[in-house]
Amino acid sequence: MSAPNPTTADPGTVIFYDLKCATPNTCWSPHCWKARLALQYKHVPFRTVWVSYPDIKPLLGHTQPEAKTVTLPVIQHGQTWVFDSWEIVRYLEAHFPTPSLLPNPQSAHFFKLYNDTVLVESVWNLFAPRVANILDERGKVFFVRTREEDLGMKLEDVGRGETVDQIRRPLGVVARNLAQFGPYLAGEEVTYPDLVLLSTLLWFQRANPVDTETILDMFPSSNVSRAPIVREWFDRVKGLGVVQEEPAE
Amino acid sequence: MSAPNPTTADPGTVIFYDLKCATPNTCWSPHCWKARLALQYKHVPFRTVWVSYPDIKPLLGHTQPEAKTVTLPVIQHGQTWVFDSWEIVRYLEAHFPTPSLLPNPQSAHFFKLYNDTVLVESVWNLFAPRVANILDERGKVFFVRTREEDLGMKLEDVGRGETVDQIRRPLGVVARNLAQFGPYLAGEEVTYPDLVLLSTLLWFQRANPVDTETILDMFPSSNVSRAPIVREWFDRVKGLGVVQEEPAE
Repeated sequence: MSAPNPTTADPGTVIFYDLKCATPNTCWSPHCWKARLALQYKHVPFRTVWVSYPDIKPLLGHTQPEAKTVTLPVIQHGQTWVFDSWEIVRYLEAHFPTPSLLPNPQSAHFFKLYNDTVLVESVWNLFAPRVANILDERGKVFFVRTREEDLGMKLEDVGRGETVDQIRRPLGVVARNLAQFGPYLAGEEVTYPDLVLLSTLLWFQRANPVDTETILDMFPSSNVSRAPIVREWFDRVKGLGVVQEEPAE
Repeated sequence: MSAPNPTTADPGTVIFYDLKCATPNTCWSPHCWKARLALQYKHVPFRTVWVSYPDIKPLLGHTQPEAKTVTLPVIQHGQTWVFDSWEIVRYLEAHFPTPSLLPNPQSAHFFKLYNDTVLVESVWNLFAPRVANILDERGKVFFVRTREEDLGMKLEDVGRGETVDQIRRPLGVVARNLAQFGPYLAGEEVTYPDLVLLSTLLWFQRANPVDTETILDMFPSSNVSRAPIVREWFDRVKGLGVVQEEPAE
């Protein structure tokens, strides 16, 4: 690991610590996506340091001294370190206010909690175990060991008997609201909730592309010539250029 | 049944059709509460017509000609009839704009969908069957017959094996957001989401007071001298006088 020295890095450039996987320079973690998409949407200059699971604590433990588990994303901006995707978007909003992602922080925070707990939780057992297949070798060993310790069972057994249809009710809330108030999750403009849901779906797509197609098509449009509601929104938000290729290092 | 004649009623007074129960002049239905609380919060002059379940369709079927099932609440304002709690609050907001309940209609609508599907659904089987016990005699017979036809089982069997703890995750989203952004669900001011959740909890309290006490105390405040988060919010919103005694007819 070679983290840039914060005292010599260009103070205008954010250093973004993202989770490594088997495909170089490729984001997959939903929480890292949330921070990455916010950086990209706000055109913040940043460079990425890719970190494998077992290297997170040695490299970044100092940023989360109270935490039992050290987590990404983390950003470093000059002398300032920020971790947790919600804290990062608040930091970015304060320091790079245009374009705004948090015109209504309260409802954005509510949506994030809703996404991270209720919506993701509904199909967590189907998607999370598949993460092992996309990780780098050291990350995979670490991920499987720690998750199986937490769960008390084999990862391949976690999702048995569960179906992607369990997301229908929580995602239906989003789809019905989009149908009435779109084109974005908070109405006329892109806001943080759009990036939160996009992050979840990009993660789903990487871990389990077949079930993700089912999800994207779950809610047909009332206009038969248009794509299903969630798919149309997904293509619209991706089309804004918030999902960008990472330049090779 | 004696519905007021709309052509002779004071055109400034809203006629509010609410669901009858065994206790005279007492609201219990969560959907009717939503409309009633909005009327009360906005100080709209209104009077109530209490309707037993089997009388809804004969009396008000004409207001919902496309519907398979005729539902309350319904309001009548001069020559205008409006049904569905969401449509009613939108109508009230347009005609009685102060104080506003929908400064952000999109997030209010999202919260209502979330409340009505995800949050209520989590404990629906525990609370809904108990409604039979609070209804008037004719309403009870109608309610039990139609619900058991829909469910294909006895009402007393519906909630077996389920627990009030199932609301912990969806209510936790609300509690954590309140802790960070309170004192009301959308921040500094009462808005429609507060009335929506209050309606749900008033219904719960009527149908199942013991489990409702458990719900109100589920999320302790980080400040030990303060009431649990949801209870503190509940008492605060009730204390605004939005829940009012109905004058005897």
